[in-house]
Amino acid sequence: MGVLKVIGIGPGSIDNMSIRAKKAIEGSDIIVGYTKYIDMIKELVKDKEVYSTGMMGEEARCREALNLSKDKNVALISTGDSGIYGMAGLILEMKNDEDVEIIPGITASSSAGSVVGAPLMHDNCNISLSDLMTSYEDIKKRVRLAAEGDFIISLYNPRSKGRDKYLKECIDIIREFRKDNTPVAVVRNALRDDESYKLFEIKDFDDSIVDMMSIVIVGNSKSFLKDGYFITPRGYACKKRDAMK
Amino acid sequence: MGVLKVIGIGPGSIDNMSIRAKKAIEGSDIIVGYTKYIDMIKELVKDKEVYSTGMMGEEARCREALNLSKDKNVALISTGDSGIYGMAGLILEMKNDEDVEIIPGITASSSAGSVVGAPLMHDNCNISLSDLMTSYEDIKKRVRLAAEGDFIISLYNPRSKGRDKYLKECIDIIREFRKDNTPVAVVRNALRDDESYKLFEIKDFDDSIVDMMSIVIVGNSKSFLKDGYFITPRGYACKKRDAMK
Repeated sequence: MGVLKVIGIGPGSIDNMSIRAKKAIEGSDIIVGYTKYIDMIKELVKDKEVYSTGMMGEEARCREALNLSKDKNVALISTGDSGIYGMAGLILEMKNDEDVEIIPGITASSSAGSVVGAPLMHDNCNISLSDLMTSYEDIKKRVRLAAEGDFIISLYNPRSKGRDKYLKECIDIIREFRKDNTPVAVVRNALRDDESYKLFEIKDFDDSIVDMMSIVIVGNSKSFLKDGYFITPRGYACKKRDAMK
Repeated sequence: MGVLKVIGIGPGSIDNMSIRAKKAIEGSDIIVGYTKYIDMIKELVKDKEVYSTGMMGEEARCREALNLSKDKNVALISTGDSGIYGMAGLILEMKNDEDVEIIPGITASSSAGSVVGAPLMHDNCNISLSDLMTSYEDIKKRVRLAAEGDFIISLYNPRSKGRDKYLKECIDIIREFRKDNTPVAVVRNALRDDESYKLFEIKDFDDSIVDMMSIVIVGNSKSFLKDGYFITPRGYACKKRDAMK
């Protein structure tokens, strides 16, 4: 009997993967995952049997991974953290007596944050704008409560053709609770070869550059821009420093 | 002139560190960080100059790291993600013309989540219960709004001697918005040698086992326990599967 390892590979380069994730892939007989993600680590999997599928059919992919693990060691690949909007949950829901190990990775908000500075230094939340999994009414309610709670907000799956206006509408909701100069970062393909990013003040936010490969991070009431960095202070400590100057 | 790399080492073992973080440490001349964290990776730093300090004095440590980087390559170590309650923000606040690189790591909620299953699969937030950085009134407000927004809630720094009752009070706030059987996980020293964890239903939650080395994760309205795993489904997909059965 084999083991099914559900692996978060981080942003999508071998370098930003954990050593444990790399070893787990190297020790597997079969790699299962979405074609695009397997391409990102192709050096690692070139001698492996690969079961690669398109974006849809996640449930079929999970079932196949579980079945294959009865005889062989299987690595099921997600980008980011396998436990945050990844494949870990579905596998555990569907699992019977298969041997499963969950291997975490660096989630997309952490990767994106590191590209623009230190936006996530205080209490923060991750919200997906995909309405495949949640109704848009629930998404907007959650965005409003997070804004009222002064969380730093990372928006996953921020924009696709079918829901072109959600991002702009959600930013407008957050803006009701934030100053005009609150920083907003759009980070596209964070820590990948074709990484790019743009920083805004929320009053000037332009969603036209945002796509599904982007993460959008909105600061809390204390976040600021300094020399091209997006920084959120940790709180009191900062005030204390100011008072000591 | 050297480079200051602000490195998140993940939960605290070399194995769960990114390959990039490991290379950055190996390529540094001087390692700066809290004694306990440097001990966790002592194999990696045994031939290095180490500037290690107690928990207090973070600002002095950052100033020293910035100064040292004028001549040498410096690695400043945080556990988890250097950008989430780590050292990245303070360094960027204090930085002048030093060359700084932020290297993300696996944050503590991801590590803890992977130990107990897949609790963080949907919209989730991280809240620190430390009142060194935020007033307790603000913390409670944030906990309440996160609970109302049906976020999965990861509590960092959940309990210390000086604020013994905060955790229990915050769990009681969350309970106003959750069913009695909502899962709660306490994970202590996640992915370290002396890891332990305990799963509760929120109605039976017992804070006596929680300390500063723990993360507490509270599920959303759809989270459930199955065969010793804490699982949060991703939403509609799960309902659809149920309907198809």
